[in-house]
Amino acid sequence: MSNKKVLQEQFFQTRKRSEEICAPLEIEDYVPQPMVDVSPPKWHLGHTTWFFEAFVLEPYSKGYRLYHDDFAYLFNSYYNNAGERVLRPNRGLMSRPPVREVMAYRAYVTGQMLDFLGKNPDQEVLDVIEIGINHEQQHQELLVYDIKYILGNQPIFPVYGKGFSLSQEEKRGFVKVGGGLYKIGAEGEGFCYDNELGQHEVLIRPFEIAVNLVTNGEFLEFMEAGGYKDFNYWLSEGWDYINKENITAPLYWHKHKGEWYSYTLEGFEMLDLSLPVQHVSFYEAYAYAEWKGMRLPTEFEWEAAADKLNWGQLWEWTYSAYLPYPGFEKAPGALGEYNGKFMSNQNVLRGASVATPKGHSRKTYRNFFHASCRWHFSGFRLIK
Amino acid sequence: MSNKKVLQEQFFQTRKRSEEICAPLEIEDYVPQPMVDVSPPKWHLGHTTWFFEAFVLEPYSKGYRLYHDDFAYLFNSYYNNAGERVLRPNRGLMSRPPVREVMAYRAYVTGQMLDFLGKNPDQEVLDVIEIGINHEQQHQELLVYDIKYILGNQPIFPVYGKGFSLSQEEKRGFVKVGGGLYKIGAEGEGFCYDNELGQHEVLIRPFEIAVNLVTNGEFLEFMEAGGYKDFNYWLSEGWDYINKENITAPLYWHKHKGEWYSYTLEGFEMLDLSLPVQHVSFYEAYAYAEWKGMRLPTEFEWEAAADKLNWGQLWEWTYSAYLPYPGFEKAPGALGEYNGKFMSNQNVLRGASVATPKGHSRKTYRNFFHASCRWHFSGFRLIK
Amino acid sequence: MSNKKVLQEQFFQTRKRSEEICAPLEIEDYVPQPMVDVSPPKWHLGHTTWFFEAFVLEPYSKGYRLYHDDFAYLFNSYYNNAGERVLRPNRGLMSRPPVREVMAYRAYVTGQMLDFLGKNPDQEVLDVIEIGINHEQQHQELLVYDIKYILGNQPIFPVYGKGFSLSQEEKRGFVKVGGGLYKIGAEGEGFCYDNELGQHEVLIRPFEIAVNLVTNGEFLEFMEAGGYKDFNYWLSEGWDYINKENITAPLYWHKHKGEWYSYTLEGFEMLDLSLPVQHVSFYEAYAYAEWKGMRLPTEFEWEAAADKLNWGQLWEWTYSAYLPYPGFEKAPGALGEYNGKFMSNQNVLRGASVATPKGHSRKTYRNFFHASCRWHFSGFRLIK
Amino acid sequence: MSNKKVLQEQFFQTRKRSEEICAPLEIEDYVPQPMVDVSPPKWHLGHTTWFFEAFVLEPYSKGYRLYHDDFAYLFNSYYNNAGERVLRPNRGLMSRPPVREVMAYRAYVTGQMLDFLGKNPDQEVLDVIEIGINHEQQHQELLVYDIKYILGNQPIFPVYGKGFSLSQEEKRGFVKVGGGLYKIGAEGEGFCYDNELGQHEVLIRPFEIAVNLVTNGEFLEFMEAGGYKDFNYWLSEGWDYINKENITAPLYWHKHKGEWYSYTLEGFEMLDLSLPVQHVSFYEAYAYAEWKGMRLPTEFEWEAAADKLNWGQLWEWTYSAYLPYPGFEKAPGALGEYNGKFMSNQNVLRGASVATPKGHSRKTYRNFFHASCRWHFSGFRLIK
Repeated sequence: MSNKKVLQEQFFQTRKRSEEICAPLEIEDYVPQPMVDVSPPKWHLGHTTWFFEAFVLEPYSKGYRLYHDDFAYLFNSYYNNAGERVLRPNRGLMSRPPVREVMAYRAYVTGQMLDFLGKNPDQEVLDVIEIGINHEQQHQELLVYDIKYILGNQPIFPVYGKGFSLSQEEKRGFVKVGGGLYKIGAEGEGFCYDNELGQHEVLIRPFEIAVNLVTNGEFLEFMEAGGYKDFNYWLSEGWDYINKENITAPLYWHKHKGEWYSYTLEGFEMLDLSLPVQHVSFYEAYAYAEWKGMRLPTEFEWEAAADKLNWGQLWEWTYSAYLPYPGFEKAPGALGEYNGKFMSNQNVLRGASVATPKGHSRKTYRNFFHASCRWHFSGFRLIK
Repeated sequence: MSNKKVLQEQFFQTRKRSEEICAPLEIEDYVPQPMVDVSPPKWHLGHTTWFFEAFVLEPYSKGYRLYHDDFAYLFNSYYNNAGERVLRPNRGLMSRPPVREVMAYRAYVTGQMLDFLGKNPDQEVLDVIEIGINHEQQHQELLVYDIKYILGNQPIFPVYGKGFSLSQEEKRGFVKVGGGLYKIGAEGEGFCYDNELGQHEVLIRPFEIAVNLVTNGEFLEFMEAGGYKDFNYWLSEGWDYINKENITAPLYWHKHKGEWYSYTLEGFEMLDLSLPVQHVSFYEAYAYAEWKGMRLPTEFEWEAAADKLNWGQLWEWTYSAYLPYPGFEKAPGALGEYNGKFMSNQNVLRGASVATPKGHSRKTYRNFFHASCRWHFSGFRLIK
Repeated sequence: MSNKKVLQEQFFQTRKRSEEICAPLEIEDYVPQPMVDVSPPKWHLGHTTWFFEAFVLEPYSKGYRLYHDDFAYLFNSYYNNAGERVLRPNRGLMSRPPVREVMAYRAYVTGQMLDFLGKNPDQEVLDVIEIGINHEQQHQELLVYDIKYILGNQPIFPVYGKGFSLSQEEKRGFVKVGGGLYKIGAEGEGFCYDNELGQHEVLIRPFEIAVNLVTNGEFLEFMEAGGYKDFNYWLSEGWDYINKENITAPLYWHKHKGEWYSYTLEGFEMLDLSLPVQHVSFYEAYAYAEWKGMRLPTEFEWEAAADKLNWGQLWEWTYSAYLPYPGFEKAPGALGEYNGKFMSNQNVLRGASVATPKGHSRKTYRNFFHASCRWHFSGFRLIK
Repeated sequence: MSNKKVLQEQFFQTRKRSEEICAPLEIEDYVPQPMVDVSPPKWHLGHTTWFFEAFVLEPYSKGYRLYHDDFAYLFNSYYNNAGERVLRPNRGLMSRPPVREVMAYRAYVTGQMLDFLGKNPDQEVLDVIEIGINHEQQHQELLVYDIKYILGNQPIFPVYGKGFSLSQEEKRGFVKVGGGLYKIGAEGEGFCYDNELGQHEVLIRPFEIAVNLVTNGEFLEFMEAGGYKDFNYWLSEGWDYINKENITAPLYWHKHKGEWYSYTLEGFEMLDLSLPVQHVSFYEAYAYAEWKGMRLPTEFEWEAAADKLNWGQLWEWTYSAYLPYPGFEKAPGALGEYNGKFMSNQNVLRGASVATPKGHSRKTYRNFFHASCRWHFSGFRLIK
């Protein structure tokens, strides 16, 4: 297939996949926003559609008619609109437009995009479309996080279904990685984000890194040893955080009649001790490492070791701040806001998760979340 | 018709009416809770149903099977359940059970109640059912307020439909009411709440009261005279309130291209200056009266004058605190929590509104809201 | 002595008394504002002085020179100043002017006032001065509350000294009061506030009222019977309040090694069960009465019964909202803000306390606080 | 002088210096805590004293008698005490102990320390004392920040006095620094903190860096060009921060009658455009750099270039997160909490300021603050 054909197919599959992820939901599940980091599924579906409308169809497709004048306003996450408006949208309260209209909006834009792709657009536009596809894939992963959070906060713990469960890893101990200058970052073959660019050498000292992620069983030992109660293991902000939020276990863990259960997308289940521990904050990962007398890897160590590791089930907290690589340049215009403006007070996570769309993972990928986030699919591994 | 037949009919009509009120909604509109005073329509529908299950069917109907074990927990507004539960429900985040299941719950309980009413229950139970009907009627009125608030906070201002609009009143000036001892409160013929009972004499001084409610046009004069900016007209807490909340007009008023509009259930419309002003807090009513050199009536004055007034379009703020009548006694058990425990820091409103169900209004009725509330159907009249 | 001489003497004694109340303090104690209701002693001393400067000397004393241009701004509790200012004062952070300068300000204004009083001012001015004296007396009582709160929140519980302790009351049971029309409010002989005026008849039903206040020992029974844990005794807002604030005993009570202690101005002491219970909110008084199967008096019942009661040790919560008497008129200008604008969401307290200045109590006096306040010298009595 | 003699002299001078810094204060100025980052001067004086008592005298000086049993509790910033206590201290409300008693505490501990130093203590103890001296020096710098904040938030803008003013720098443009491996961190000769240790090589690319700090005049250009209003220049969190806090200029800048003034320790003065801009957050420094089309240095670039720069007037924001150097090890026990636990969500600042005590600055020093902090003596320089 030609490059354009590949993109067309990718585009079509990506659009379809977002809707498949939402298929098991009740209409009502598309609406709530149980915390500020979570967006209603309805919003994700509209926003990823608006991206193609705003950055491809409107500027490049002659005579394109907006599906609805207000939708740019409702589904734009980027700009504060200029002000003619009477009310500001609040995602979790936006019962309108209803889901069926968002779906119609999707169908319209998908159709228009396929027409447009049929007309041999320039490489410049194809590049934007590729970003749009990757953007929608990122939102697919967020959709899974957000759906889990919405359902997992229902008192009746509804079942979503299969497709995002973890597997037990074969235990393989620690592996040595030699010191030296390592090339870090993407060279720019194949798609990557601006934050990965600027491949550069980083001097790394020798280290030994675990091939596997820390498991529920191992984390439970930390809990039973009083790990959540001894401030010596915690970063100062982490200690404040768990005390203020009254955190004593990973997210979705519940003690019920003396046994540990966890909510998963397959329902409320007994905790499986052999699986990787999931839904911990950076602070909890750090405290576990301190308790164990080990440490978390930097993002550079992780990338240097990646080929020797079991990775891809959960995003892995690193002890690296999300900062620009040397020579980082953000793209001009709205797309320049994609990554750079978030480079402050966030931690880098490396790897991928069971919720990461196919073809969307690579070892140079730099994911980032605040140290206190727990609703994403996060785990961690140790360095001796 | 016998008393029982009347009640059966009332019950049936009341149940139907709640569902009619919700008929124009999208499924998505049943979910959000845009502020703490508002409950999602779904919750109202479940809660009024739970009332009959918990206070009639479970205690009195032999062999009654609960529709669902968890629903008592999800739709109870009264008690903090004992604690076996893992999560607390949060009304606006409860996407489950879906609307169709709440409707099935309603149908099941309505059916069981009709069966039960066919079996000649004791007067004691009929009394509870009568309370249950009145309880559901109160929630019907709240449903209208909450639906307006949910829709009125959508950036696209959807139309709900007809049925709850105000009419222009024939202007009739002020009427004199003589001083003396007036009987206040209900004698107990016909249904009334415990807070109306204890009919008692109150000594009232002569006064002159407006036959009509203050209008949008009159209120606009106050606004244009700088009423919201001069602290001399305001109660101290009212002044703090409007400044903290940045309030400069009644709720649902929007200035758009230099003209005043308001959101009504029929859509976003030019403000009709001849209609009664609606959606003002007690503080705004008080400030208007101060500006006008007049005052608001007490609830006793209102009741003494009621037969001479145009009333029934909007609940009317009085300058009376919601306190027990002499000799007030609350009912035993859970129903005793109905009114008494709210007798603190609230203002009495008298009258009724266009959202009040038929047969649910009487001149002894004591409605009550916090002085800062604006989302209910509130207006006011003056005393010279 | 002539009226003017009496006033001059009253003025002098009042000014001196404020300073005596502060005499046991360290300079550092004049500064903090540990909660929003509390003002630093320094501020009270300045504010009561500013009152005489702003309402007497400036308008009436020809050629009067302000002590300091900024002090009106710093010590005015009434107006939001027009805006030339760069910073807003925050009472608890105002380390400047230092105490010694506030004392100099006091001395200057006291001196100027005495000169002015020597010059035969008009009755109109004498009336303002009388208000100023009563105003300072009110602040003397607040000074005692605030000093207790400041010292009582030091981890080392410093001793203030004698002068404000309670005595055991001789137990005298309940007394009957007949029903009928009672005259309520002040006739206007002798000084009184605008909120007491408008003497009017109120119809009261017969009742039996306790001659004594509820004691620490009696209140402890309520606590030991689980009173703070059973929501049936509580007003809805009271229940929310004690749970949110984690309140399980009166303010200043501390359980230490299994025994109850309380902080008093004489230090940290074992709780004396025979003394009236102090520092309870209206909510706690209400809950106690509910538990006891009795109720709190209205302010009208209290006034009707006053001559038969032991009163004066503690302000007594009534179950009356603070509302205007019929025909209430507020004074013109700034002094009109004295009382009327607070008539919303407050409860009336009647009586007086050991912190009330001599000559400042009368049975028509209407004190008022929010139902949740506990730092003032409050207690309560019951009606059967 | 022997090493011990030097330390003894250093100790004595350091103790004296803390008191000199406070000498211009009124007693009242020692008390307030106007924001959570600021501590009352009284607390700094007590806490630095407690350090020597808790870490030197108690463990090492035989027969040492605590000055006061409660002071460890009141002046400990490290541990949550075990719980026998009735009340938790709240620094800004602690009027007791009074300043004169804190001064007596200082005198007692200083005296005991000098005695102890006279008795030839082991090197192990001398090391702790050296940390104690550096600890007190750090608090001396914080004292200056906090005093400025306390006085600068008085509406009357009191003068503190001379000693901490900035000077105009000779303008010297940009200087080139070559790429390569640079040694970063301290070798451990002379005192340094644990966070500087682990000297290691870092690969740096060539860059050009400004010899001078950005000035008030330059920053004003950014302001006048609308820099605070264009979100394109800002990190996402920075944009939220300035909008939430309503920040439109550096801290202590005030526009008064159309001219810019700033509060300095010498009083309220016209802004001197030639001086380095002070009291900006990292976010403001970043935005300025974006607007200028340049960037901030990393801490590694700064250290590599330090010998070529004018530095020492203001701490300089770097675009480096505060993270452990490779091989970082924290000290055992309480002193291990000194630095490591703060390595999260903070930015490194390099250099020193006019408030840095003599002998307390070196080019490997890693200072750190949250990106939003502005009350410390911060400025910045640019890289082309």
